[in-house]
Amino acid sequence: MAASTSHDRSSDADTRRRIIRAMAALLQQQGYESASIKRIATTAQASPSSVYHFFPGGKEELAVEAMRHGAGEFGKLLAQGLASSADPAAATAACALLLADDLKQSQWSDGCPVAVTALETIGRVPGLQEAATEALTAWRDLVAAKLTGSGIAPDAARSLAGTVISMLEGAELLSRVTADDTPLRDAAVHLAQLVDAAPRT
Amino acid sequence: MAASTSHDRSSDADTRRRIIRAMAALLQQQGYESASIKRIATTAQASPSSVYHFFPGGKEELAVEAMRHGAGEFGKLLAQGLASSADPAAATAACALLLADDLKQSQWSDGCPVAVTALETIGRVPGLQEAATEALTAWRDLVAAKLTGSGIAPDAARSLAGTVISMLEGAELLSRVTADDTPLRDAAVHLAQLVDAAPRT
Repeated sequence: MAASTSHDRSSDADTRRRIIRAMAALLQQQGYESASIKRIATTAQASPSSVYHFFPGGKEELAVEAMRHGAGEFGKLLAQGLASSADPAAATAACALLLADDLKQSQWSDGCPVAVTALETIGRVPGLQEAATEALTAWRDLVAAKLTGSGIAPDAARSLAGTVISMLEGAELLSRVTADDTPLRDAAVHLAQLVDAAPRT
Repeated sequence: MAASTSHDRSSDADTRRRIIRAMAALLQQQGYESASIKRIATTAQASPSSVYHFFPGGKEELAVEAMRHGAGEFGKLLAQGLASSADPAAATAACALLLADDLKQSQWSDGCPVAVTALETIGRVPGLQEAATEALTAWRDLVAAKLTGSGIAPDAARSLAGTVISMLEGAELLSRVTADDTPLRDAAVHLAQLVDAAPRT
């Protein structure tokens, strides 16, 4: 009995995890509005009723969790880029280049886990707007920590870190729409330039 | 008879225009997926059948036309910002500040006429992706013309103009989601810095 319960629990956790990952992929690829429970279930190889079992609040509750999952994944990519060089300009540029490589490899399908959903639901779904704000703030803080850690003055670092996230978001949009990584590669050059010019403490 | 025909034609043109504007507003506020024909008709104060009358291709055909309309409006705003100063750095910053003012005034609802729809439909609705690419290219070319006209070297101007559009798109996203115009105001400062530093011919 004990073994079977433990197996059920682990298979429950697996199903829940598959559902969150499936939703995160849908949010990243085409957003919240087009993701039906049926589609989410099919993508997760689960039944629609299991989606409601794990997420009684339905699509919105699941989307908040999926956005947090996706935000964590994107945070890892940023952290990888930022850790790639002691020079903050090179490290910031590396984030844009990593994104360019990832996007190209997914044939422009795996975009930002937050952008589409956030834009679709602004002013309409407070839980999602809150999760999106948390994600954008966490990413900005990651970049700001690298910049201040490299001797950039805190005020400059904070505003520059916001601009890094803006630029990555916008350049990713342009790259996806035009199926061309030039905007992200240009962003890498221009971000490095801004970081190089930032005042040091 | 002639008078009545001319009246019908002008009222037809009015209805068609109202439908396009209603769809452009919906695309700008929350994108393509959530815009049902019923909702478009209600917003336009028209009947659903008149939407199909003017746009036999339905929602997709209408969205392409509405995106072109919205892209033209956004182009006017860009042109206004770019014309506001002979100094290309100040002119570029003015675009971000105009956007910040517009967004704040609409309580963060009237965003980019292209971004949400483009992200929702990448790889799935070629007509919309094409219209989005046209819009982004036209905006970039507007900025590039100002930069080269101010003596910036053509290659630098082209890549910088792309970065201006990326930054405006991204900062607009961050400003809308966080209901705070700081990202666009920071973008204005950083874009001016990049334009100032660009090589001259």
